[in-house]
Amino acid sequence: MDTQADTRIFDQLESEVRSYCRMWPAVFTKAQGHTLTAEDGREYLDFFAGAGALNYGHNNPKLKEQLVEYIQKDGVTHSLDMMTEAKREFLQTLDDVVLSPRGLDYKVMLPGPTGTNAVEAALKLARLVTGRTNVLAFTNAFHGMTLGSLAVTGNGSKRAGAGVPLSNVTRMPFHRYLGETDTIDLLEQHLDDSSSGVDKPAALILETVQAEGGINIATNPWLRRLQNLLKRHEILLIVDDIQVGCGRTGKFFSFEAANLDPDIVCLSKSLSGYGVPLSVTMFRRELDVWEPGKHNGTFRGHNLAFVTATAALNEYWRDDELTKAVGRKSSTVQETLHSLADEYGAQVRGRGMINGIEFETPEVAPLISQAAFERGLLVETAGANDQVVKLIPPLTIDEDELARGLGLLEECVHDAHREVAVAS
Amino acid sequence: MDTQADTRIFDQLESEVRSYCRMWPAVFTKAQGHTLTAEDGREYLDFFAGAGALNYGHNNPKLKEQLVEYIQKDGVTHSLDMMTEAKREFLQTLDDVVLSPRGLDYKVMLPGPTGTNAVEAALKLARLVTGRTNVLAFTNAFHGMTLGSLAVTGNGSKRAGAGVPLSNVTRMPFHRYLGETDTIDLLEQHLDDSSSGVDKPAALILETVQAEGGINIATNPWLRRLQNLLKRHEILLIVDDIQVGCGRTGKFFSFEAANLDPDIVCLSKSLSGYGVPLSVTMFRRELDVWEPGKHNGTFRGHNLAFVTATAALNEYWRDDELTKAVGRKSSTVQETLHSLADEYGAQVRGRGMINGIEFETPEVAPLISQAAFERGLLVETAGANDQVVKLIPPLTIDEDELARGLGLLEECVHDAHREVAVAS
Amino acid sequence: MDTQADTRIFDQLESEVRSYCRMWPAVFTKAQGHTLTAEDGREYLDFFAGAGALNYGHNNPKLKEQLVEYIQKDGVTHSLDMMTEAKREFLQTLDDVVLSPRGLDYKVMLPGPTGTNAVEAALKLARLVTGRTNVLAFTNAFHGMTLGSLAVTGNGSKRAGAGVPLSNVTRMPFHRYLGETDTIDLLEQHLDDSSSGVDKPAALILETVQAEGGINIATNPWLRRLQNLLKRHEILLIVDDIQVGCGRTGKFFSFEAANLDPDIVCLSKSLSGYGVPLSVTMFRRELDVWEPGKHNGTFRGHNLAFVTATAALNEYWRDDELTKAVGRKSSTVQETLHSLADEYGAQVRGRGMINGIEFETPEVAPLISQAAFERGLLVETAGANDQVVKLIPPLTIDEDELARGLGLLEECVHDAHREVAVAS
Amino acid sequence: MDTQADTRIFDQLESEVRSYCRMWPAVFTKAQGHTLTAEDGREYLDFFAGAGALNYGHNNPKLKEQLVEYIQKDGVTHSLDMMTEAKREFLQTLDDVVLSPRGLDYKVMLPGPTGTNAVEAALKLARLVTGRTNVLAFTNAFHGMTLGSLAVTGNGSKRAGAGVPLSNVTRMPFHRYLGETDTIDLLEQHLDDSSSGVDKPAALILETVQAEGGINIATNPWLRRLQNLLKRHEILLIVDDIQVGCGRTGKFFSFEAANLDPDIVCLSKSLSGYGVPLSVTMFRRELDVWEPGKHNGTFRGHNLAFVTATAALNEYWRDDELTKAVGRKSSTVQETLHSLADEYGAQVRGRGMINGIEFETPEVAPLISQAAFERGLLVETAGANDQVVKLIPPLTIDEDELARGLGLLEECVHDAHREVAVAS
Repeated sequence: MDTQADTRIFDQLESEVRSYCRMWPAVFTKAQGHTLTAEDGREYLDFFAGAGALNYGHNNPKLKEQLVEYIQKDGVTHSLDMMTEAKREFLQTLDDVVLSPRGLDYKVMLPGPTGTNAVEAALKLARLVTGRTNVLAFTNAFHGMTLGSLAVTGNGSKRAGAGVPLSNVTRMPFHRYLGETDTIDLLEQHLDDSSSGVDKPAALILETVQAEGGINIATNPWLRRLQNLLKRHEILLIVDDIQVGCGRTGKFFSFEAANLDPDIVCLSKSLSGYGVPLSVTMFRRELDVWEPGKHNGTFRGHNLAFVTATAALNEYWRDDELTKAVGRKSSTVQETLHSLADEYGAQVRGRGMINGIEFETPEVAPLISQAAFERGLLVETAGANDQVVKLIPPLTIDEDELARGLGLLEECVHDAHREVAVAS
Repeated sequence: MDTQADTRIFDQLESEVRSYCRMWPAVFTKAQGHTLTAEDGREYLDFFAGAGALNYGHNNPKLKEQLVEYIQKDGVTHSLDMMTEAKREFLQTLDDVVLSPRGLDYKVMLPGPTGTNAVEAALKLARLVTGRTNVLAFTNAFHGMTLGSLAVTGNGSKRAGAGVPLSNVTRMPFHRYLGETDTIDLLEQHLDDSSSGVDKPAALILETVQAEGGINIATNPWLRRLQNLLKRHEILLIVDDIQVGCGRTGKFFSFEAANLDPDIVCLSKSLSGYGVPLSVTMFRRELDVWEPGKHNGTFRGHNLAFVTATAALNEYWRDDELTKAVGRKSSTVQETLHSLADEYGAQVRGRGMINGIEFETPEVAPLISQAAFERGLLVETAGANDQVVKLIPPLTIDEDELARGLGLLEECVHDAHREVAVAS
Repeated sequence: MDTQADTRIFDQLESEVRSYCRMWPAVFTKAQGHTLTAEDGREYLDFFAGAGALNYGHNNPKLKEQLVEYIQKDGVTHSLDMMTEAKREFLQTLDDVVLSPRGLDYKVMLPGPTGTNAVEAALKLARLVTGRTNVLAFTNAFHGMTLGSLAVTGNGSKRAGAGVPLSNVTRMPFHRYLGETDTIDLLEQHLDDSSSGVDKPAALILETVQAEGGINIATNPWLRRLQNLLKRHEILLIVDDIQVGCGRTGKFFSFEAANLDPDIVCLSKSLSGYGVPLSVTMFRRELDVWEPGKHNGTFRGHNLAFVTATAALNEYWRDDELTKAVGRKSSTVQETLHSLADEYGAQVRGRGMINGIEFETPEVAPLISQAAFERGLLVETAGANDQVVKLIPPLTIDEDELARGLGLLEECVHDAHREVAVAS
Repeated sequence: MDTQADTRIFDQLESEVRSYCRMWPAVFTKAQGHTLTAEDGREYLDFFAGAGALNYGHNNPKLKEQLVEYIQKDGVTHSLDMMTEAKREFLQTLDDVVLSPRGLDYKVMLPGPTGTNAVEAALKLARLVTGRTNVLAFTNAFHGMTLGSLAVTGNGSKRAGAGVPLSNVTRMPFHRYLGETDTIDLLEQHLDDSSSGVDKPAALILETVQAEGGINIATNPWLRRLQNLLKRHEILLIVDDIQVGCGRTGKFFSFEAANLDPDIVCLSKSLSGYGVPLSVTMFRRELDVWEPGKHNGTFRGHNLAFVTATAALNEYWRDDELTKAVGRKSSTVQETLHSLADEYGAQVRGRGMINGIEFETPEVAPLISQAAFERGLLVETAGANDQVVKLIPPLTIDEDELARGLGLLEECVHDAHREVAVAS
């Protein structure tokens, strides 16, 4: 452990709200690809990737080159929603590389640079377009911390942080929330029954994979049934692809595998590719009922992020190499997890490079995470009770390093189970 | 006008919500200090400064040097709330340069990198600490676009964007909202009267200068009376210093002149110094009731912004040179505005380097802004009906260039009045 | 049809919100027991009983006698919550006849004389006691029209009448809302999962039989499982026994059969016994956290209703004759309904003297109701689409007259099916 | 004091929420005109009149005769919104005696029999008609206890009873809330300023005299300015005439003196004339956008109340005798109050037969009320701190008895001031 690190100013000055620094008590100084280096020189293999913000690794050299060049030539840094060269490049590349090839006729809104800005803009738009106030959200959903996004988020502690009741949202059970019961039956009944007490919603907001919620995976048939039901009732579908978009599940969007065509899509986290703040809210062209300035934000024109985002799209999404690599690495991860599940009893869940394992002894998860840190591996837990070990390495990680990390993980799993066995 | 600029992708792809690009239809490629350069080579003198996000000018060379060096050495870019060297430097410098010298025993929270994140966190905290849901906000206030911040914002069009009723807020008239009536009398009566129907609030959120609201200035005695009243009722005072902090009014905080000691302070915009997203919510140590992770956000550890923010504090706030310069430049601006007011009839309002003029013919303001753009000067309008010409140049602008800009402005004022006279 | 009735003033002056008078376009002048007499002398057999407000029939002679005597001796009529002799008699009788024999150590609150007053008071109390804002309510529930009660009601048209979003309520599927799925599984999962997004509720509000909702019956085991789950989570159970209390299901309270001991109980409708406004909210002694006057209401001391309520309790609830009679009559009704179901295909639902039949051809229900009126029988429809024929005669109806009414109903069912068959 | 009264069942069974019985600890058995008689034979002169529900005195003999006759002939008692003879008479008489002579082309809605039902219906309708959610309400307003009405009520303790935040209401200062400042200036500024943060309201709800709030009187010019402002902004005016309608201020409606023509009017309390529950919500014909059954209520057809209401209208409102009598008696009351004010220093407020006095020593008011009870006079206090002695005798009180009561009051005022003087 990084016992020598000077953490005094954090302890003294920073709010008690801080959290990751408690789990990983090192002061980091350097980052490259899948490696974070602490002040004492210790290196950590990063299977956490900025909670999904670093799909292409830390300080990706190809993006870095573009970024430094742009800064050095005094490209515009801050521009609100003025037009800049960097923004033009970004929009054009987004269209050429992402939207047009997928036949998505979307308008793009820059709602402010964080995920919660994107979700708030999506919710506003859905309500404005439909004139309805209610929105459907799923159990265990995570969409952000500002009041609109928090209202659709499931986590009880975070919801309690609001200090006011969170309203205008109806909660629906996610896929497999009730074992084998198809939870869409309930939604369908609610929508078909005019006395259900569920006011007709403007939209449903969906994560196809609930990442923070515990790596809960919606299957493709379920997703398609869901979208069909919404279309029949003229309810908009918002996909929050903030954590699992940008290739995390293999394809650029997580909903491509199920062939969905969402009305509104939110992207952030890995969108800039470099870990700097950027987000977009995209929606079907005919939904663009916004009046000029009706939503704004100081940092909605973050040009440094446009530059790295453009570079990332050019580098990784003009062909399907990354998608294929995700497929291969996914198999590697799944293999390890299933073998651990065979040994200890566990549920393995995942798609692409977001994978999780929930052991029959749920309290091992935090122990595994802690043991991993001690061995130089960063893995976090997810789920309502931190009962799921969550693996989200950079998509670009070397296969060798991936294997090394999985080996470390196995050791930690063994240790944690031993520890629990001894304690009980 | 920049008629040759290729704006097709903006027109085709970007949402109708975009606004500044309509007023200033150029594609900008370069920025330095107080100058923005468009693709066609035209230079614009920037009296707008990123709506207050660029107090030290565009791409400030001293900050840029630190930024590039940090990127090049692969300093950590993205870290959530993990500990990093850059964050430690930032916290230490903030304490040494800003908090300690002013005797402010604040805890610092990194609530996400935008202003609205900071306001949402402040509102949550005030409600959590007091167990009350109501919050007081002023007429013409501007605090952000996410649902919590939007509820305290006054602008009707932006509020309508919510698509749901905005609640848990009681509106109070700002200073001089009712001419000579002291509006604190109403607040006092509301608070003293248990049947006023105004539920005892957790906090009042205050801009000492309402920037977006039309450069409305609260006087020091009024501010002190306000704070005393709140203290008597144990209501927290939140100062939203996002637009007028970081030296805009001369001192680092806008509330220093009135000797306030707010319970909670929000900073963003110019905090990073470089136009990149960063914000903090700071509060009295004893209010830090946050539990770990009760509020979070992917980009709350934006290290590039920590680097430039640290550089800005070191460069500009270790002495009072900038404060003095703001004083001098303020006089220059005020002199011009008062001379225009003498000529045309107008109300001049302002403090430090945020100044505005509202002519007796309110419809000249947009014409002035447009004429300015044509002359190579960026100035925006503010107020409910865009009736105020708002001047917020970088604090670091050369005095010559300031004078040149004011000269251009005078021409525009003459032209706009002529135009209106002809039309009527 | 009552074509000669002078209905001009209703048409001209009364709001379009009126409804029953459209279904039954007669002007009624006299009422006795199970018979309503129209101006033209036509008599109607009343299988509707004031929507459950007339369990002892119209103008019950034993109650009437007491009422007239009280009025004639100038007993206090209106007294807010002052003490009166009539109120003392009522409270004492309620205790002696209802509460004590059932071992219910309840406090009694007079919240205003209508059902919705009683529900609003119950919701307030549950929220005050627990400090929680959320309340659970069921699909197809009906609890009243004022904003608090309407928020827990399911009917979409009535909810839309609010003109504001209805909040602080989470909707749960009632028994058999999803066929064989035990809907308590969902509730249990919501409550056990801290990230379900369902904020821990103050209370659940329950009708053991959903009357307006379509005669949906909760079984005893389901009710017991529900109460156990709530107790485990320290969530209060409110039973709204407004429509099915006062003997409608046989016992005085509808929840006696399942052996529930609710925390809060609401009564109204047949409580006064005479069709005059009266309601009570009763709750476990230790929940009485009310401060004096924190809830009030001008007509909370309606002494004429106290007089008739006392008489009704004395007359009908000092022995179990009425309960037994309900049992016998219930069998008669069920027999007829099942024979109709055998003939036409239908679902028969009911307990005690609240019974309904939902035919496979749902559109026959309104035709049956209309045909019944023409034959001199008042029956209404219930359910989200008026698809259920609902039978709630006075409990005191003669067995002969009950049989006669059922005979008329059979004719109407035949006719309505013929009519539908011809039309299709 | 009524020390012998058997109050055990009240103490044991009734909720702590009860209040008047604490101030007046007698058990009342009989009531006639302005006299309440307790069990021990003691008579009380009633200057309280059921909080305004007994404008024609207790058990008014002319109304009683009609009531008994109707009951004895088995007139329909309970009818929901079916048509009955008694309801027809009521509607016709209301039109003939009240609406037509005043040129009011209103539709009449029977929203349930209590005041809060009437207010809830008014608020719903205003929101439905305009499509807006916000409503304006005044400081110190009192409109009822159900959630919609409570949201527009000012009293802090009662608001806290809700257990949820009360929303969709903006509070405005009533006339003279800020001394000589015309509070309509604030409202006007709020409405004219699109960035005031006060969302355009559906309606404003007004008591022309705030009774519970402390006998606060709006002057006629202020009321007219208010209505003109609302008309200019197309905001509906709801007059809640529940406490001060039915002749309390002289004319039938309290707004007649100021020549207002409200869009919506609520009546209850003295509407039935006999202290039994009845209320109406009336509105301009073109506002009747209700769909059948969109608002309902079990006791909206309370025929006993229709009978007495009809009798009251016929008896008292076919000529202006009552109005004239109110004028005379008002002078008598005012004379006494002013003479007390001269002696002790006090503010006298009132119109017609609702009058109040607020002494410079506010703590005397409860002492006066208590002393009065001991002398056989019922008077209550009003205002946020019970600082106003409130006089609302039956309008029909004998002039002698009125004088006698005022004499008793004077004695109480002397005693109370002596008591306070001694204590201090």
